[in-house]
Formats: sequence, structure tokens, C-alpha cells
Amino acid sequence: MKIYLAGPDVFLPDALTIGQRKVAICARYGLIGLYPLDTPVDRNAESASLAIFKNNQEMMDSSDAIIANLTPFRGAGADPGTVYELGYMAGRQKLCLGYSNDPRLYAERVRDFTQVTSHEDRLVDRDGLTVEDFALADNLMTIHGLDLHGRPLIVPKQAPSDLWHDFSAFEVCVRVAAERLKQP
Amino acid sequence: MKIYLAGPDVFLPDALTIGQRKVAICARYGLIGLYPLDTPVDRNAESASLAIFKNNQEMMDSSDAIIANLTPFRGAGADPGTVYELGYMAGRQKLCLGYSNDPRLYAERVRDFTQVTSHEDRLVDRDGLTVEDFALADNLMTIHGLDLHGRPLIVPKQAPSDLWHDFSAFEVCVRVAAERLKQP
Repeated sequence: MKIYLAGPDVFLPDALTIGQRKVAICARYGLIGLYPLDTPVDRNAESASLAIFKNNQEMMDSSDAIIANLTPFRGAGADPGTVYELGYMAGRQKLCLGYSNDPRLYAERVRDFTQVTSHEDRLVDRDGLTVEDFALADNLMTIHGLDLHGRPLIVPKQAPSDLWHDFSAFEVCVRVAAERLKQP
Repeated sequence: MKIYLAGPDVFLPDALTIGQRKVAICARYGLIGLYPLDTPVDRNAESASLAIFKNNQEMMDSSDAIIANLTPFRGAGADPGTVYELGYMAGRQKLCLGYSNDPRLYAERVRDFTQVTSHEDRLVDRDGLTVEDFALADNLMTIHGLDLHGRPLIVPKQAPSDLWHDFSAFEVCVRVAAERLKQP
């Protein structure tokens, strides 16, 4: 059983080590983790980004499930590249799992980036755009995508001291994947 | 032929009017536009967000194509909820089209939100996270998802004065959808 390991982990300085740790945790549960950086790509080639895309899509197509790291990335919500992959796997009818190491709600987090006020029964940002306020951890497509194509977002009760190197919530996803995928 | 009209347009104060305009443009090309707000949902119900999700997914499942508004939304890139939908439609093998009314590149836009420096051949933000720098308009999954599942992102040469109410790039997508979907 193969699991596609999605997330902004690839943007961290120690991205390769993180991938190795995640793959090792998968192996302990009898699963094969596929990590985007496992396949070498010449990042200076003109078509480097396209090669990365194709490689990621092939890995997703060959996987039985996705575990998406949805910890907020450079903004109030999850990394959009990871969210694309979650949507893609939902569309492909694969098992969709995800975690976030930030237990706050989306509407709370938006306040870190813009002024939010109440206006006629809704929250709006500085530009007058509605702030989704359904007491969810992220936008409703991402959150309910998990609910209906896998299981609800895994979130720790308290944020770990190191958001990017704590793999407890990730491991819960791996355990769920192992249970679900090995069902007869 | 039905087109799912995705985008953060739904978060604007005049979201309903925008939807009507987009549906009218589709109709001029012989296409039926499906807009998330077309189906009424009791936004105060406990399960309002789930009802919205299910409605959006049903509309996507019944559509032949998606036209995603990928104009940057409250950050350096596209609205992640919209990006989820783009990924979902790519996974469902539907025609994927998108536009952005901001012609700048992703790496340029990140600088509006965080300090970006060069470090050993890559751009990094204040937290040491890599900033994707492939001279693309957004993250590579979104951009190449369009390239391989539809056609490249439609972008105006210059940003229109009103990012949210200029439908020129949207109309180009509608024209492409009409051409593609009506091929024998």
C-alpha cells in the first residue's frame, strides 16, 4: 500500500530528512511512503517545475492514499499546492487524510494577517472580503474534503513547540491509513 | 455543457451579482454556468458548511469543466478553496481552465507579505521556508495542473483597475471552454 506524502515540508531547509523520517514512520506500519523529493529533478532545467508536477502526479496516481500536511503555511491556511493535491486525490476517489499542527480556527488565524471586523452578520477583512467563519480549522472545501473522502483533520490539542518537526499528528494519519487500507 | 464557476468571488459583498454576470457570459457562448451561491443554504444551520461543500461537489460532478478565478486572495496566491476544486476537477479528468487578474509572478508577490532573501541558490522567507521561484504566476501544482488538464492560465497583460469585477480574462476562459467542449 502506497501513501503520497504531501505538504509544504518540501520547502523546509531539512526537507530531505523530514521525508526520510515520514517514510520510516510509514514503514513501521507496513506502508510505502512516497515523498515528492524522492525523485531527483534538475532544478535549473527550463522545465524543472513541469518535471516536478508530472512526478508528483505520477506518485499520486500510483498511491492508495494521501496524507497531507495542512499546517498553515505563509498565511492563514494550508499550502495551496498541497490543497490542490488533496483535491486531486479526492477526485481520484483515493483515501484522503490530513493533519495540522496548529489547532486554532481559520477565522482566528486570519486576524494575524489582516484586520477583521463584523459587518451585517459576517466577518470581513480590510478589503471587504468575507472571512469564512464556520468554526473550522481551514476553508470548508479542504476540511470537508477530508471528512467525506477520508476522515476528519487530525489536530493536536496544543500546538507542538516545533510546528514542522513534530510527527505525532502525522503518525495518527499513518495509523488510520494502515487500518483503513488493510481492511479486507 | 455545464461549467463550474469557482473562485473567491463568493466572498465579495456583491457575490450574487458577480455570479449572475458570469452565468450570463456563459449563456452567450451556449454554456450553462453553475455558481456555488445558486443553491440556497441556511448559513446559520449547524451543518451549513457541509451543505455548501456537498452542493459544490455535486455541481462539480455534474459539470464538464471548471473555470477557476485564481486571482490572488488574501495572500500571495490563489484562494486555497478554489485550488482544492481545481485539483478535484483535474482528478475527475474534467477540462480545467483558470484565470488571474494579477499578472505578476508568485515570487514577486510573496515579497508583499514577508521578507524574502537569497540563500544558497534559493529564495527563502523570514521563517527560512523556500519561496517557489520558477517564474510562474502561482505554485507549480496549480499552474501545471491547468497546463496538463486544460490550457495555461489566462492572465491580462496589465492588471485591470478592478481585480474582482473585470471579466475579460474570465470571458477568454469561457470562449476556450465553448470551443473545446463543442469539438466532435
